Amino acid sequence: MIQGDSGLHIIPMGGVGDMGMNLMLYRYGDDYLMVDCGVRFPDAGSIGVEHLLPNLKTLRNLKGKLRAIVLTHGHEDHIGSLRWVLKELSVPVYGTPFTLGLVESRLREVNLPENPILREITPGDSLNVGPFDLSFFRVTHSIPDCVSVAVGTPEGVVFQTGDFKIDERPLDGEIFDREGFRSLGDRGVRLLLSDSTNASVPGRNLDEAEVAEHLEPAIAEWDGRVIVTLFSSNLYRISSLHKMAKKHGRALGLVGRSLHRYIQIGREHTSLDLPGPEDLFQLSELNAFDPSRVLILCTGSQAEPMSALFRASKKMHSSFILGEGDRLIFSSREIPGNSFKIGKMINDICRQGVDVLKGHHYKMHASGHAKADELKEVIELLRPKLFVPVHGEYAFLRDHIRLAEEVGVTNSRLIENGSVLKISGDEELVVAEVDSEPYVHDGGVCETATEMLLSERKRVAWNGVVDVHIVRRGAFDRRAYEVQLSSAALYVDSGRLLEQCQSHLTRFLKELDGDTVSDRVEELVNQEVRRFFRTRTTKRPVVFTNLVDMR
Amino acid sequence: MIQGDSGLHIIPMGGVGDMGMNLMLYRYGDDYLMVDCGVRFPDAGSIGVEHLLPNLKTLRNLKGKLRAIVLTHGHEDHIGSLRWVLKELSVPVYGTPFTLGLVESRLREVNLPENPILREITPGDSLNVGPFDLSFFRVTHSIPDCVSVAVGTPEGVVFQTGDFKIDERPLDGEIFDREGFRSLGDRGVRLLLSDSTNASVPGRNLDEAEVAEHLEPAIAEWDGRVIVTLFSSNLYRISSLHKMAKKHGRALGLVGRSLHRYIQIGREHTSLDLPGPEDLFQLSELNAFDPSRVLILCTGSQAEPMSALFRASKKMHSSFILGEGDRLIFSSREIPGNSFKIGKMINDICRQGVDVLKGHHYKMHASGHAKADELKEVIELLRPKLFVPVHGEYAFLRDHIRLAEEVGVTNSRLIENGSVLKISGDEELVVAEVDSEPYVHDGGVCETATEMLLSERKRVAWNGVVDVHIVRRGAFDRRAYEVQLSSAALYVDSGRLLEQCQSHLTRFLKELDGDTVSDRVEELVNQEVRRFFRTRTTKRPVVFTNLVDMR
Repeated sequence: MIQGDSGLHIIPMGGVGDMGMNLMLYRYGDDYLMVDCGVRFPDAGSIGVEHLLPNLKTLRNLKGKLRAIVLTHGHEDHIGSLRWVLKELSVPVYGTPFTLGLVESRLREVNLPENPILREITPGDSLNVGPFDLSFFRVTHSIPDCVSVAVGTPEGVVFQTGDFKIDERPLDGEIFDREGFRSLGDRGVRLLLSDSTNASVPGRNLDEAEVAEHLEPAIAEWDGRVIVTLFSSNLYRISSLHKMAKKHGRALGLVGRSLHRYIQIGREHTSLDLPGPEDLFQLSELNAFDPSRVLILCTGSQAEPMSALFRASKKMHSSFILGEGDRLIFSSREIPGNSFKIGKMINDICRQGVDVLKGHHYKMHASGHAKADELKEVIELLRPKLFVPVHGEYAFLRDHIRLAEEVGVTNSRLIENGSVLKISGDEELVVAEVDSEPYVHDGGVCETATEMLLSERKRVAWNGVVDVHIVRRGAFDRRAYEVQLSSAALYVDSGRLLEQCQSHLTRFLKELDGDTVSDRVEELVNQEVRRFFRTRTTKRPVVFTNLVDMR
Repeated sequence: MIQGDSGLHIIPMGGVGDMGMNLMLYRYGDDYLMVDCGVRFPDAGSIGVEHLLPNLKTLRNLKGKLRAIVLTHGHEDHIGSLRWVLKELSVPVYGTPFTLGLVESRLREVNLPENPILREITPGDSLNVGPFDLSFFRVTHSIPDCVSVAVGTPEGVVFQTGDFKIDERPLDGEIFDREGFRSLGDRGVRLLLSDSTNASVPGRNLDEAEVAEHLEPAIAEWDGRVIVTLFSSNLYRISSLHKMAKKHGRALGLVGRSLHRYIQIGREHTSLDLPGPEDLFQLSELNAFDPSRVLILCTGSQAEPMSALFRASKKMHSSFILGEGDRLIFSSREIPGNSFKIGKMINDICRQGVDVLKGHHYKMHASGHAKADELKEVIELLRPKLFVPVHGEYAFLRDHIRLAEEVGVTNSRLIENGSVLKISGDEELVVAEVDSEPYVHDGGVCETATEMLLSERKRVAWNGVVDVHIVRRGAFDRRAYEVQLSSAALYVDSGRLLEQCQSHLTRFLKELDGDTVSDRVEELVNQEVRRFFRTRTTKRPVVFTNLVDMR
């Protein structure tokens, strides 16, 4: 993609200037390295979009040059595009055991041209991939087995944090590697790429252990079933809840397939105390217990339409039936853009008599992303020559640069997706832009938003559609027109507006020059219909007009 | 609407079980009273909707029976539907001077069949409207001149709080009438209807004066222009900022028409210290000042597309130009559902080099709605026989009932929009339901969501549209078909899918029985096109098929 340029190139293809879909490319000479390969879930305004992916066209150009994909952790916004990218580029994928466990289970769902090559790493490991010397550092986050990666290059060390927060008491004892950070800092970091998700939020996060301390009384005190909804990947939280269930004599049930999947993979690949088959009960079995002896974990905290909780809220789940006496705790945050539908779901759940606690009001949830004071600590440990914030919207990146300045970093650079940042000696320069427009996955097709007609989708929804069918009879000086109209997604006043538009068009056609060619008639009718509806309802519908000449 | 039933009827037509569009009906015998007449702004999912209004069909039935409309305060979700309701029902409107000032300025924009009859009230006033004895109590909120209303009826006193919080130090000295509440409580309240917006939020609100204390250093310390975006109706905040501008020697400018409107009406009808023409500068004049001597207030905190701030974020405002050295403070909250677009706007603003502070992280904004502890205090002051929470989603209403129980209320009832709650002696019963489905205002038309085809709008956006035009020639045993397809909002792989579908249809038609009538052919083709696209792209487009028989 960038030919014959020397030095190290850093090329964010996603997640820099925009949330989710994290993917960072490193280039040195003809060798490329990819760190993370995430997917993004669409916002409410993206009609009919399933996923947003990194620009596959740009990535296809890396064929034969990409040496490896390194994963920092197993969240979908870091691994979720592998199933598309590995179709195009067959390269080894490096990750920690738990991360690769998740990848493997995901890739099993799709047909790849070749078997994926998955290579385990553990914190402390070092390995070479082409010109890149990789080493890994343990960090804490809201999913287990996360690492930061240091990429040694001929231009110095680039340190990429991946997602992290500093949890002082992680439940698996895998503590944040402050000392490793500090000692790498002592040796010198050329460039730090750090997670900006919470750069605009002051202070520090709660530890997972503190969250558990706030959850426990809310579960212990309740004289009925307790249901906790959370992100399935948050195995720390799940481990805490598993322990609470045992301590307070509550039988544990899981609702939602992804919970089973994450827990199973967590049991195989982490040291967390997670519920096994012997600890878990089916919903039907739980019905035999006194409700005050039951704890259920379920998916659906974001009101995802197919989730267990959402279906239960609509009374459409066959076995997960909510009711009077249940307490539901949201041990989760509301992802911006989901608040409205989460609110609606909570209403429906309350209507069934359930007691609902929004955990973020009561310290029953903590973010997985470092806040301002944690971010500053990391920068101080690593003391980079250059700082580039990643994983965040533009505003967060900017706030992150401020934090870096507060702790003495004098050299920061704000780049966005597609920028090619060249590092060569003391030089740091954006030397090019590559196409990083996200691909849209919808209806089995992956294409750019333009190709997928995303803006036309909005236009037809706002303005509606009119179909006009015209039959023209007779010779050119005595022409007669039959006009038929139908419409969709357009207010037509119980058909009256269509009738009026039909009469209007009939008059309009009569006055047309008899030898107007049919293409031109169709074009004029389209205009006339749009004008008709704009005057009456301010709408400019999409119009299909077909004229048939019948002789 | 409910014939020949005795007792008092309470009928919420909006805002109970759902946010916004507050409208409460009181009925005694043949006489009706309306308290508030609000509008709702649509959520992100309601494609092409401008406003949601109370059900006009139900309200039309009140002709000749509605005695008055009483307004508690001037927010749009309490007065915004007057311009439609007064077209149907010409009745006197009661409100405080500032509230009526806002109503008058709004109604001036529309053509009503009769001049509106606006009647001023002040807290402490009592008046009779049919069988209803009204009295008014001062409350504090995020807009000036708010009242609660006590409706004396033959069945006892109903107390409706309107929106409120308890601000201990309101800047206009108009303090919350605790003593009035308590003494009314002593005399006996049959029913309390209280604002539930923040019933799920623990604690108490910051006072407006405290917010000002947090805003002041952020303005004083900044060595450049400071721009504060806020809700135009929040004249307390504006008054604080006006004082700060004077104190710190910053020249004040306003951007956004509604700010001028609210401030002008506030100067006419409240005792707040608000900026007058002598205090205000045009943007062009402000350019002559040292930037550190400038304070600008602007609209657009919710990223409304037509607002000053949004247009400035897109560099589409002719005179409001943002840039390096500016600080922008959001002295506002994010209305759920707006977070996503607000985030995008902030990014665009940061890209212009502006320093952005989200005030809700730093106590630079306070809600206008009482939180749990304030709500409990009000219930304790009034000690109602029956408690019915209003102004809130179902979940908030339910949490409000919990709060009432915590302070000893034993008799609560959760009703939703459309319920007719009858109070007669000791009896309290939901006796009927009226149609309260909101009306949709869009493109100059007001109709129900069904009539406005809201779900069809989504369907065409998700699934796209295909237009099929068929010409059939020849006798029934040797028929030939010409098929033409076009589409909108549908992925067609640069036309390839349309070509394939055309060939498919041609084959399909050839195999049809020659004497199939054209209606039936059209129906079969519709099905076939939907099937074709469902198999290839999982989409089920809306299909218009027209067949012409040409002989």
